Amino acid sequence: MNLHIENIQNDLKNDDVQAYLLTQFTNVEYISNYRPTSFAFCIIKENPIIYASSMDMEIAKNTSTVEVKEYESFEVMAGELKNEGIRSLAIEPSLPYSTYEKLRDDFEITSKTYVDKQRMIKTHQEIENITKATEIAQKSFLQLDILNNKNTEKEIAFDLARHMIENGAEKESFDTIVTSGANSSLPHAIPQDKKLEQPILIDWGALYNGYCSDNTRTMVYSEKQQEIWDIVAEAHDKAIQTIKPGLKCSEIDKVSRDIITEYGYGDNFIHSTGHSLGLDIHETPGFSPRDDTIVEEGMVITVEPGIYLEGEFGVRLEDTVAISKKGRIIGDLPLNII
Amino acid sequence: MNLHIENIQNDLKNDDVQAYLLTQFTNVEYISNYRPTSFAFCIIKENPIIYASSMDMEIAKNTSTVEVKEYESFEVMAGELKNEGIRSLAIEPSLPYSTYEKLRDDFEITSKTYVDKQRMIKTHQEIENITKATEIAQKSFLQLDILNNKNTEKEIAFDLARHMIENGAEKESFDTIVTSGANSSLPHAIPQDKKLEQPILIDWGALYNGYCSDNTRTMVYSEKQQEIWDIVAEAHDKAIQTIKPGLKCSEIDKVSRDIITEYGYGDNFIHSTGHSLGLDIHETPGFSPRDDTIVEEGMVITVEPGIYLEGEFGVRLEDTVAISKKGRIIGDLPLNII
Repeated sequence: MNLHIENIQNDLKNDDVQAYLLTQFTNVEYISNYRPTSFAFCIIKENPIIYASSMDMEIAKNTSTVEVKEYESFEVMAGELKNEGIRSLAIEPSLPYSTYEKLRDDFEITSKTYVDKQRMIKTHQEIENITKATEIAQKSFLQLDILNNKNTEKEIAFDLARHMIENGAEKESFDTIVTSGANSSLPHAIPQDKKLEQPILIDWGALYNGYCSDNTRTMVYSEKQQEIWDIVAEAHDKAIQTIKPGLKCSEIDKVSRDIITEYGYGDNFIHSTGHSLGLDIHETPGFSPRDDTIVEEGMVITVEPGIYLEGEFGVRLEDTVAISKKGRIIGDLPLNII
Repeated sequence: MNLHIENIQNDLKNDDVQAYLLTQFTNVEYISNYRPTSFAFCIIKENPIIYASSMDMEIAKNTSTVEVKEYESFEVMAGELKNEGIRSLAIEPSLPYSTYEKLRDDFEITSKTYVDKQRMIKTHQEIENITKATEIAQKSFLQLDILNNKNTEKEIAFDLARHMIENGAEKESFDTIVTSGANSSLPHAIPQDKKLEQPILIDWGALYNGYCSDNTRTMVYSEKQQEIWDIVAEAHDKAIQTIKPGLKCSEIDKVSRDIITEYGYGDNFIHSTGHSLGLDIHETPGFSPRDDTIVEEGMVITVEPGIYLEGEFGVRLEDTVAISKKGRIIGDLPLNII
């Protein structure tokens, strides 16, 4: 029995709930080492079990550390749980309403974040995977020779993905953003079929051993762009210097937001300062004005302030920070690429 | 006001519900032409509105045909709806439980598939997009020269993605499957860092103008592999020949399943015969034993029977079928590549 499961079993006991249903692929993987490819119902109880789809049975049997059974139908599965005497069931907050609807007549349902809570604190091994993913991503970025690049945004995004795979990544950890010129004011811009304009913003990451990396660099050229870049860099650096266990996540957000606001660009910083990452590219907690989670050792959270001037350009600078006694940037890519 | 919205407004009237909440990105896109990049709440009522995140405001204003407003907080949004006198609210079946939980005290909630229902029937323009996506994907496949390919599975998957992008795709419509040898018995195998073994199974698609394509080809070499291939090809061809409006989806599944079962491989056909596609790679309805939806003109559904011999190999053959008076295969890639 692994520790993750024991923790959930203790949580269940404390909350007086009999079982916990997991369906989110990365949650199932976190618990069992088996990453579903179509769907799966993982039920943590005294004897944990995974109902896997028939098309996943071979891979589930070969990879899962939790007992696997072939899923026949929802009715059969719910019937087996009821026959075991299970009446109260915890679910993930992300469970689709339609699944909840099929459960609510037979079980007393509560929503719990037992797995998210554990996933917040990364093990040494998990931090090593994120570090390796970051190293691959940063090495690949430098191979682009971005400053002499005559390709289109789309081609560069593709080259970056190719370098990451050649350097050992499974794939991108999310769709690479290569954007330039006025489009860079869109935080989630899609690479276009056009040659690079100025500034150039690249937001990218690798997936290694199931774990994500995430970085952003912006290369600026004009005086105005440099002025904005300097403000974002200050917000980035100060926020990272402030990180330490015991503070609230919202306090870290406030550091970068206050700096940007003091320079008069508060309304142009249109997202949170950062998010956790791990098996998923977006995890909890985040450095957000609304997240009062206490920062703890073992968390891995991005710091990515940005200023977006609609119709003109945007600047974002992002690093991923592993938290021990203080915040330590993962990887060694300079902020200033030019 | 577009027709999709009018249809929903009529559905709401018939069901005596005041508003419909959409959050699924492709549903919001289908209704408004704006594809969210972080989150959005689209509310169809007398005056439809989209609450977009601050980071999406620029792109939402530039692309949405529905009025856009900046999202402040869940409380503000729910308050505005209540102030308008909205008490009953329809939601998508896929809505996360946590969002439902925030709504249920203030609104009478029912789950409705108003948009899925419309998306089942593709317009001429949508079928053109799927056709173009398929043509790009098939042309790219032929550029691989797979039979003389000395690369690894992973490299081939990457080359295929590159060809698709060079040929005009936005990206892959899903992670390309290139699998060979014993691994091909895993329906959703992940490409490995190994040279091709036999047989070779490739399942791939392009995304064009937001629309997906989906095909699978298996190249077989031994007598046993050819025997299985012939059965799967027969199941594929007969199912497609049977398709016509008025039949149930489950009846099409039965055609291919019966053929495979007669040859003694029923237990090795471990998934449905097919799924609809469009803005998403998996849509409803599907050719499944449990789906009694009536086949209608305008549906676009894959036919992809397979036989999977654990530890040995797998064969799957997949085409995408546009349904008019009968079923018409999209694209012209032969089943038999060798």
